[in-house]
This record gives sequence, C-alpha cells and structure tokens, in this order.
Amino acid sequence: MPRIALGLAYDGAPWMGWQTQPHRQTVQDTLEAALAAFAGRPQATVCAGRTDTGVHAVQQVVHLDTDIVRPEQAWVRGVNAHLPPSVAVRWARTVGDDFHARFSARSRSYVYLLVEDPVRPPAWAGRAGWSFRPLDEAAMRRGAACLRGEHDFSSFRSSQCQAASPVRTLHQLDIERRGRFVIFTLRANAFLHHMVRNIVGALVYVGQGRQPPEWMPALLAERDRRRAAPTFAPDGLYLTAVGYPPECGLPPTDATSEVREMR
Amino acid sequence: MPRIALGLAYDGAPWMGWQTQPHRQTVQDTLEAALAAFAGRPQATVCAGRTDTGVHAVQQVVHLDTDIVRPEQAWVRGVNAHLPPSVAVRWARTVGDDFHARFSARSRSYVYLLVEDPVRPPAWAGRAGWSFRPLDEAAMRRGAACLRGEHDFSSFRSSQCQAASPVRTLHQLDIERRGRFVIFTLRANAFLHHMVRNIVGALVYVGQGRQPPEWMPALLAERDRRRAAPTFAPDGLYLTAVGYPPECGLPPTDATSEVREMR
Repeated sequence: MPRIALGLAYDGAPWMGWQTQPHRQTVQDTLEAALAAFAGRPQATVCAGRTDTGVHAVQQVVHLDTDIVRPEQAWVRGVNAHLPPSVAVRWARTVGDDFHARFSARSRSYVYLLVEDPVRPPAWAGRAGWSFRPLDEAAMRRGAACLRGEHDFSSFRSSQCQAASPVRTLHQLDIERRGRFVIFTLRANAFLHHMVRNIVGALVYVGQGRQPPEWMPALLAERDRRRAAPTFAPDGLYLTAVGYPPECGLPPTDATSEVREMR
Repeated sequence: MPRIALGLAYDGAPWMGWQTQPHRQTVQDTLEAALAAFAGRPQATVCAGRTDTGVHAVQQVVHLDTDIVRPEQAWVRGVNAHLPPSVAVRWARTVGDDFHARFSARSRSYVYLLVEDPVRPPAWAGRAGWSFRPLDEAAMRRGAACLRGEHDFSSFRSSQCQAASPVRTLHQLDIERRGRFVIFTLRANAFLHHMVRNIVGALVYVGQGRQPPEWMPALLAERDRRRAAPTFAPDGLYLTAVGYPPECGLPPTDATSEVREMR
C-alpha cells in the first residue's frame, strides 16, 4: 500500500498535545478525522515528534499508508478543507515504504520564544513564554555551553519520560536577543520528554540571576531532575524542523528561521 | 470621584469584540468583572475605540470613575489577577475629571498584518490576515495614495456604522513588505465602522491584480460601499495607539512599532 508523508503545522494552544486521547481533543485525532473525511475510510498516522499540550509545530512530519491515489496537491487542499484554522497540511509527498516519520528522522529542531516584559503581554499569550524579570542572555549563553554534545540529560527529563536511554546528542543550542525577546534554538538527534522546557526553565534561572552559569554543568552532572528548575510553560515552544536523509525525498522541512522571525 | 485611565491589551480572537453584550463574551464585560472583583463594587468603563469580534488591541485606553484609592501599580497587578491570559492592564494613571477616553482622543492608529502563503499558516491563525495569491505592494501603495487626507469614506464604511458623518482625516497609510508579510499602518482622527478592514480588502484586490491602482480613487469618489471589495478578516487587525494631548498626562500610548515587529 503506498505510503504518504505529510508536512503539518499547528497552533498548539487549543489542543491537548499530539497524541490521540479518549476525549479526542488532540492534533492526531483532528488530523485523522480530516483524513477519514477526505479518504472515506479510517487512516492511522505516525508522527516524527509527539508534542505536548500547548506546544506548537510549524514543521511536524507524519506518515500514513493508504490505497487512495490522489495528486499530492489534492491531499493538501482536500485534507485542509476538513481541518480547523489552527491545523494545516503544508505539503504531501509519496514516499517509499521504508520511510518512517519517526524512525527515519535523524534530528529534531525546536525554537523557544521568550518575551521579557514587566506586565504579561496578551498579544503573546499562548505563543511565547514570559519573564517579568530582565534576563542576562550572556550569562545564559555561558550556562548553556556545557549542554552541547552527547550527554546523559536525566536532570532535564520528565519523570514520565518513556525513553529507553537518557543519552541524547544536542547539536545546537543558540540563545539570541531581539529587542525584548530571547530566542532559544535547539537541535538534537532526539529530545527526552520535557527536555527543551526543562533546559529553558533552568537557563531562565541563570538569566534572572537566581543561579550562576556554573550551576548548569553541576546540574547536568547530577543527573537528578529534582535539582533543576520547574518545567517552563509550553506557550513559547515550536517544533520547527525534522531532519531526514536526502534519499527520503522530502521537500525542505526546516521552518526554524520562520519562527525566529515571528518576534 | 477620582477618574482613572487604564492602558489595556488583548488578544481579540476569543472575544466577541469590546462592547458589552447580554452573553458577556466581550472584553468590556471581562474587564468590568475583573474591576468589580478588585474594587468590590461595579465599575462602568468607557474606551477610546470599540473593537469588533476578533480584533486585537495592544494599546486600548479606558477610563472609569471610582472612589477606591489605590496606588497605580496596585490597579495593574490587582486587576490583572482577575483577568484571563488574553487580556491585561498594562498601566494605570489618575487623570483629571475632564479626561474622557473617547472624546479626549485626537487620533487612533491601527496595524494590519497580512501574510502571503500558498497554504494557510496555522501559526498565524487569528493573528494575521492571509492571501494565498502573491501581492504587489507597489501597486497597493499607488492605490492607497489617494486615501490620505480628509475624505468622505462612505465607500469604506459598514452599513451598520452609526457615525454622524462619513468624513475622516487619514493622517497615515503606510504599506511595508517584510519577507512574506505585508504590513499596513494607518492613523486617523477616528475610523468609521469596518473602515480599516474595508480599505485593506480593497487594497488586496489591487495587490492581487484583480483591480488596477486607479480603481481606488474611483471607489473613494463613488461614496458607495456596494462597489468595494469584501470586508477583510479581523485576524490581522490591531489597535496600536490612541493619541491624546500631552496635558492629559498619560504614559506613552503608542505600541505601533511593537506590532510591526511581530512579524
């Protein structure tokens, strides 16, 4: 049966995360209902990276097996006709049956948008994290340096994380200031549950001066989640890219700069 | 009784506009409920510019009369504690009893964010207008030039508009491209009902090549709403500034650049 890959974007604020739930208030349930309406039969999907409640995706990748034969553009327009404004298929591509949205992926990229403001800014409610205290981005950069590379990230892992190993390779962790915004860009082979929000939470402690930059390497070495800062809000977190080998034949799947430009 | 002015920001997407309604799903009802919770008694409010369903404000100005005496910062923090994430008081100031949020205002500024994209972008759902066709911003600028100054804007006025006169003075109408965004900035002594969205709708016709730039002065001269383009979506519209004489003693109330920076 032919396999189709879809590029998906969603505003996570109205949804209880990606993964299907009995209450069906999830992106997966909504997408699968739209696919069923388009294809006339149930369509199960697999995604590259399951996002939590309130987390956004500008470039999620999903695959499904189907015997429906339609032009790729018909998948985009036809499925979008059944989706609410907060979810859209951005592209569709027929792929080989050895392609797997999750297992073929070599990397994932996330952007976290954080706005610094003495009063909470409603224009960014659900779309950016918020710090009412000023942030020292140079201190955060010094604290973040130790995280790049291959490490045991147990200190930044949710207690509900189901991954077999806490070891991940963080290829990129950039911290950039643009006016009153601080923008975190992270890329890893894969992320543990809550890993980005826990890293951002700890770095915000450093940026606010509640901990020195040297606290970050100490925290990493401790491999104990109970020593770290609280998990930061989902509002500012965007899945922006999934990296696949070129032979998968997908369109460009990196929307990282698009989110960095949102502020 | 002392008079207080409040600077207010809100995400308009969840609300049925500013003005109080029996169903109470409005910004005014929500603000007045929070004020009542803070002050312990009902508090009627008057705003500078009533916004429609789905329209945002980064700088709305409101006044109310109260015998509650509290520091200005207490009004900000105390009322915000009773407001949802989509609404926030940004500042509070004690003003003279000759100050009136609506009648003292000399100008209003709006920004309209429009995103050009072949597929609708969920990250901007409810926050930017959308054109799937490419837009020629130079043609839109040529079409817009005739609108500056004092004119009868009947062609851009909703049939429900209750203003006594259709004459308004448009001080500014700038059209700027930033990547895939087109940003409209407008400032006038006051706006008619739906005036910004009707102007944007007509300019989008010009930008998409469905009408030539010369259609705009012809439309303006006709003073007939039935000849114009459809009212454009509220999603991209932000009230960004209200201008008052300096002797009113308000803090800076121009957030126009803040919204232009959002894309």
